[in-house]
Amino acid sequence: MNFSLSLKRKLAVKTAMLCVLVISTLGVVMPTQAAHPNLVITQSDVTAMRAAIIEPGLFQDTFKARKAAVDQQLTLPIEVPVPKDAGGGYTHERHKKNYALMFDAGVMYQLTKNKHYADFVRDMLFEYADLYPTLPLHPMRKSANEGKIFWQGLNEAVWLVHTIQAYDLVMPALTGDEKTRIETGAIRPVAHFLSEESPHTFNKVHNHGTWATAAVGMTGYVLNDQDLVEKALLDLEKSRKGGFLRQLDELFSPAGYYNEGPYYQRYALMPFVTFAKAIQMNEPERKIFEYRDGVLLKAITTTIDLSYNNLFFPINDAIKSKGIDTIELVHGVVIAYGLTENSGLLDIAARQGQILLNGDGLKVAKALEANKKTAYQFKSQAFGDGKNADEGAFVILRQDVQGEQAAVFKATAQGLGHGHFDKLTWQFYDKGAEIVSDYGAARFLNVESKYGGRYLPENDTYAKQSIAHNTVVVDETSHFNANVKVGNANHPTLNFFEDTEQVKISAATIDSAYKGTTLTRTIALVNFANASQSLVFDLFKVESDKARQYDLPVHYAGHLINSNFDLGTKTQSISALGKANGYQHMWLKAEAQPTKPISQITWLNDNGRFYSYTAVNSGEKILFTQLGANDPFFNLRNENAFISRVENKKQHHFVSVLEPHGEYNPSKEYTLKSYSAISGLAYANQGSIEYVVVKFKDGSKSVLAFNNAKDVNKKTQSKFSIEGQSFQFTGRVTLFEQI
Amino acid sequence: MNFSLSLKRKLAVKTAMLCVLVISTLGVVMPTQAAHPNLVITQSDVTAMRAAIIEPGLFQDTFKARKAAVDQQLTLPIEVPVPKDAGGGYTHERHKKNYALMFDAGVMYQLTKNKHYADFVRDMLFEYADLYPTLPLHPMRKSANEGKIFWQGLNEAVWLVHTIQAYDLVMPALTGDEKTRIETGAIRPVAHFLSEESPHTFNKVHNHGTWATAAVGMTGYVLNDQDLVEKALLDLEKSRKGGFLRQLDELFSPAGYYNEGPYYQRYALMPFVTFAKAIQMNEPERKIFEYRDGVLLKAITTTIDLSYNNLFFPINDAIKSKGIDTIELVHGVVIAYGLTENSGLLDIAARQGQILLNGDGLKVAKALEANKKTAYQFKSQAFGDGKNADEGAFVILRQDVQGEQAAVFKATAQGLGHGHFDKLTWQFYDKGAEIVSDYGAARFLNVESKYGGRYLPENDTYAKQSIAHNTVVVDETSHFNANVKVGNANHPTLNFFEDTEQVKISAATIDSAYKGTTLTRTIALVNFANASQSLVFDLFKVESDKARQYDLPVHYAGHLINSNFDLGTKTQSISALGKANGYQHMWLKAEAQPTKPISQITWLNDNGRFYSYTAVNSGEKILFTQLGANDPFFNLRNENAFISRVENKKQHHFVSVLEPHGEYNPSKEYTLKSYSAISGLAYANQGSIEYVVVKFKDGSKSVLAFNNAKDVNKKTQSKFSIEGQSFQFTGRVTLFEQI
Repeated sequence: MNFSLSLKRKLAVKTAMLCVLVISTLGVVMPTQAAHPNLVITQSDVTAMRAAIIEPGLFQDTFKARKAAVDQQLTLPIEVPVPKDAGGGYTHERHKKNYALMFDAGVMYQLTKNKHYADFVRDMLFEYADLYPTLPLHPMRKSANEGKIFWQGLNEAVWLVHTIQAYDLVMPALTGDEKTRIETGAIRPVAHFLSEESPHTFNKVHNHGTWATAAVGMTGYVLNDQDLVEKALLDLEKSRKGGFLRQLDELFSPAGYYNEGPYYQRYALMPFVTFAKAIQMNEPERKIFEYRDGVLLKAITTTIDLSYNNLFFPINDAIKSKGIDTIELVHGVVIAYGLTENSGLLDIAARQGQILLNGDGLKVAKALEANKKTAYQFKSQAFGDGKNADEGAFVILRQDVQGEQAAVFKATAQGLGHGHFDKLTWQFYDKGAEIVSDYGAARFLNVESKYGGRYLPENDTYAKQSIAHNTVVVDETSHFNANVKVGNANHPTLNFFEDTEQVKISAATIDSAYKGTTLTRTIALVNFANASQSLVFDLFKVESDKARQYDLPVHYAGHLINSNFDLGTKTQSISALGKANGYQHMWLKAEAQPTKPISQITWLNDNGRFYSYTAVNSGEKILFTQLGANDPFFNLRNENAFISRVENKKQHHFVSVLEPHGEYNPSKEYTLKSYSAISGLAYANQGSIEYVVVKFKDGSKSVLAFNNAKDVNKKTQSKFSIEGQSFQFTGRVTLFEQI
Repeated sequence: MNFSLSLKRKLAVKTAMLCVLVISTLGVVMPTQAAHPNLVITQSDVTAMRAAIIEPGLFQDTFKARKAAVDQQLTLPIEVPVPKDAGGGYTHERHKKNYALMFDAGVMYQLTKNKHYADFVRDMLFEYADLYPTLPLHPMRKSANEGKIFWQGLNEAVWLVHTIQAYDLVMPALTGDEKTRIETGAIRPVAHFLSEESPHTFNKVHNHGTWATAAVGMTGYVLNDQDLVEKALLDLEKSRKGGFLRQLDELFSPAGYYNEGPYYQRYALMPFVTFAKAIQMNEPERKIFEYRDGVLLKAITTTIDLSYNNLFFPINDAIKSKGIDTIELVHGVVIAYGLTENSGLLDIAARQGQILLNGDGLKVAKALEANKKTAYQFKSQAFGDGKNADEGAFVILRQDVQGEQAAVFKATAQGLGHGHFDKLTWQFYDKGAEIVSDYGAARFLNVESKYGGRYLPENDTYAKQSIAHNTVVVDETSHFNANVKVGNANHPTLNFFEDTEQVKISAATIDSAYKGTTLTRTIALVNFANASQSLVFDLFKVESDKARQYDLPVHYAGHLINSNFDLGTKTQSISALGKANGYQHMWLKAEAQPTKPISQITWLNDNGRFYSYTAVNSGEKILFTQLGANDPFFNLRNENAFISRVENKKQHHFVSVLEPHGEYNPSKEYTLKSYSAISGLAYANQGSIEYVVVKFKDGSKSVLAFNNAKDVNKKTQSKFSIEGQSFQFTGRVTLFEQI
């Protein structure tokens, strides 16, 4: 074991040295040497920042705090350990700290011109220059994207994105020999490893590829090596089949939606905006921020749009505590503000509460101090998925009824390996909280004792499965049978999206999630004229070629308060609901067979509001579940759901409304409207016109009606009648109140 | 049914009219009529407040906001419905709103002298004067303490406490006839109902009695009826066996600790401080705030002391979201500040964020604006329980190690009917959060569909039982066999309490919780010299006259991360842990038999910190449970615990430490120190000297040593030796670091 490792290391050294030679021979040297720094921070930025740090204010505060932190770190010995640990382990975290520290020290050098900081970066880079050529592939490597300093090449690229900026910042303080030592021993070998030695990642149109191309391209600018820049932009063969530009073409929709979803969108954003800023500084003639109709700026605002109460919508593999204050989006917002001076971005910058020590960061700090901030405008939007926005859509319905509300409708494409199998799922947010929830990823990020901090096995066996989401599951199997390839090859069709004052509505269809089965869902977020009431309508139609079982779960966040039927609770013992596809992780706590015309379930969220789910009873059983079965290491959160189930049916229509109401205030000791206001619910259609009648306990009735035809426009007239009373409306949808 | 109700009502009317006559005859009229208002708000307060509301500031802001709210309410018709609903229902909430509104309108009348407000109060009181004499006992009455307007007489007393103040405020605007109509129809009959007609409550030394005596006594001052005042102070027979003064003698300890615990302490506080303020204004010669060495002021600060991160310690029946911003404590703090001008109270007032529109409220507002606030000093304290502080104690151990920490040790008396059966239980709080938790009360306050908003059946069957707490349960039966009378007749003995810089420690014993069994627990909160580490030591000794089973649960708040033993998780189905005494509500999720010398369990709290429990393995099984079994209506929160169990032993010593460590920050994507730093734990004693050796993974060792003898003082010398190494210390306790 030792022998083989040692042998590998020797081989690795030889390879690395060989590479250096190759690069030195092939590296195309640009005609003029740019002055440094010349990446995200430029010399004119430095001049402005040096002026700002002597004036009291946000920027100076940030500078002082950062300087104190860096100074404290610089009293400690430099540690560049031989890589050993996986994510969360000591060497992993140490190397992450190192690049962050080099970057900060580089900034401090430029702001203070105190050579002490430059010396620190130099000395640490010397250590890397000595170590790197000796490194074999990382002993804990797991993925196809391998690293040397880190277990994943992805981390290695992130290391270089930071380190090349740090190097750029301190270059003016280095001698030629010092630069040669660092570039030969560390910078070029890492860039070479990330590019020539990792072609499948470097050329890949994927966020791992973007980190690699950004790292290598920025290195090209700093080393004045246009060959590296061009490979980064166009791929290793400069074929434009891969590379940064191709990534920009394909990874975002025209509106800047990233197809893995918001959690990875914000992560992917970082190398995009950082490298783009460097391109803008070095080759402004490329007009990179205007590329594809300004897709990069759109990607930044779209990342913001994909949030509620500062947290990202947790679709696909997502850590749910990630939000708009993530450092990647801090960089994005700052760069976007630098380019656009859009005052709404200052609202986001203020919520982020972090000032960046760079030129655009200074602009933001000054603008915040000048009170230029205006409220960021969140609106209802359908983000078409895919590079041409024609692969389904991610739909956000928003309104303000006693606070911001958002209903999310996920009719997107699969989103590659991090995608979940949850076509047409929805979530609901109200009064700052998640009400109808999504599990997100099953993962304790970097907690080594939880499966090395990686995605847990339960991420595959539960979190990605269809039953873990709020969408229909046929015959207890997941969409596309949980096959990523099939998922990536298919997507739903967005039927329509409409945003009116009282109704925000969208519908989508997919016939490929299950063979022989078409799923069509319509979600509408509705507010009533006096703004005292809001409802979410959910109509889910399933049409199959043979009789099957259909399950529609609602993963509710809160404490069950009551139901209008006997819950059928199991009191002495409970068992797993099923054997596979996520069902094996759900305890069956209760099994009800409601008999009234409508089934009602009320829960209370920690936000102090009640939520009542009222469904037309078309014979559905209702199963109440809690997560935790077949979970030997207690990896899953014990979340709750209820599942409406029908068996042996070719067609079925799930019809429900969700109603926020009342207030529970045990601190101030009052409770208001703890019961649903709804007494009846009915659905019908007349041709392409579908309508839902809601009866309230006060005797009033309202009707939501829409025309589902493809060619409906703002002038389309629709007519229908209910019990002899005729109705007509113009356009896609109307709410008839108090009929 | 209808007939009988109608008959009852007629009888009630007659009784009420009769009472009025009796009162008119017997009422002792005081020689001089005091000017109004003369309760909590006096005429000189009014003068100062009228000056303040024309100056910009906190007080004016509060006045304007309140006035706008009152004005809006006054546009609506007066509603005084016939009482019908239980807590949370319409008529209940309406009558609660009415008294609050009358009070506010009364204040507005004094501040604006706009008769419109006085007319409103008058008109509403006319309606009550018409209604009240017609009322039978409330149809939904449940408790022994019955009401007429409300289902509980308690609410009726609260109604009068507010209404009498409102009446006092508007009296100057009323004619003699108007006053007669209101006093004859409403005020006197309610006062009479609360006193003469409810003697068992009125004379009772209990918080319900305090509300009644406060209501009646304040009515006496306003109606100039000294007889009512004296009955309120001394009881109906003026015997001093009951009444307000006796309540002051008995309900609080000398340090102001209320024996039902903080949740009821703050509730009880309201009538105490309000009536005391009225006594102070009307009969200053009684020196009520100096009574019993100033017990009322101590009760106010003690209420504050019984909190962590603004929330009260949830011992006994307690709604866990109650905290120092509760309106009762706002009143308490304002009155205390008015008397003492203690600047630490302003810290609490600032956290409460509410300004009261009265004379003391104005003082607080001005002091806050003058920035006179200083940090409130929370400290480690043992509050002796009982009127003589000799019935056990409620112990709070506090320190600041990377944030405020508190360990609570409940060695109190039973605390009457709201007391839980959890002698010697503990809780732990760190970094703002509950870490080792207490369920509090099983109740959804005022949520009608949850058992009428009352205490749920599960409050008796689970929340009050011993297993629901962090204390030893013998043979699966609760302390005192869950008998309140036996519990009230017995209490633990506080052995010692010591507060040193590095160690806060306390120990207590009880031999009456189980026949033939003595329980002794020592809890110590310890910080290490460099403040990088803190530990809670828990030593629980059980000595019995025969072999029994001992369970020691830890109700942990957070997600289980790992253990150093096989969990023995049940994957396919789970069953209730037991049949009764709370065990029937716990699912048994895993059953482990650790074999290493120490057993370790780590969990992660939502506060982002890890907590490792390390116990000496003395053969304990460890059972992992989750609440929810035998819970047909989903009334219980699904909280987690692990239970250390030994069977068939006469004596047992549970020895453990709890260790906060590391940080999980998925938002910023780092994880620090997710593993325990402890590698070994051992306990021994040498005579009265007990010590615990903690070994750390870095090779260091520390020893916590204390002398448990009764007569230890600050100069007592103690010696002991470990493996030939001798140690000595002075006083109760010492931490030997890095031995």
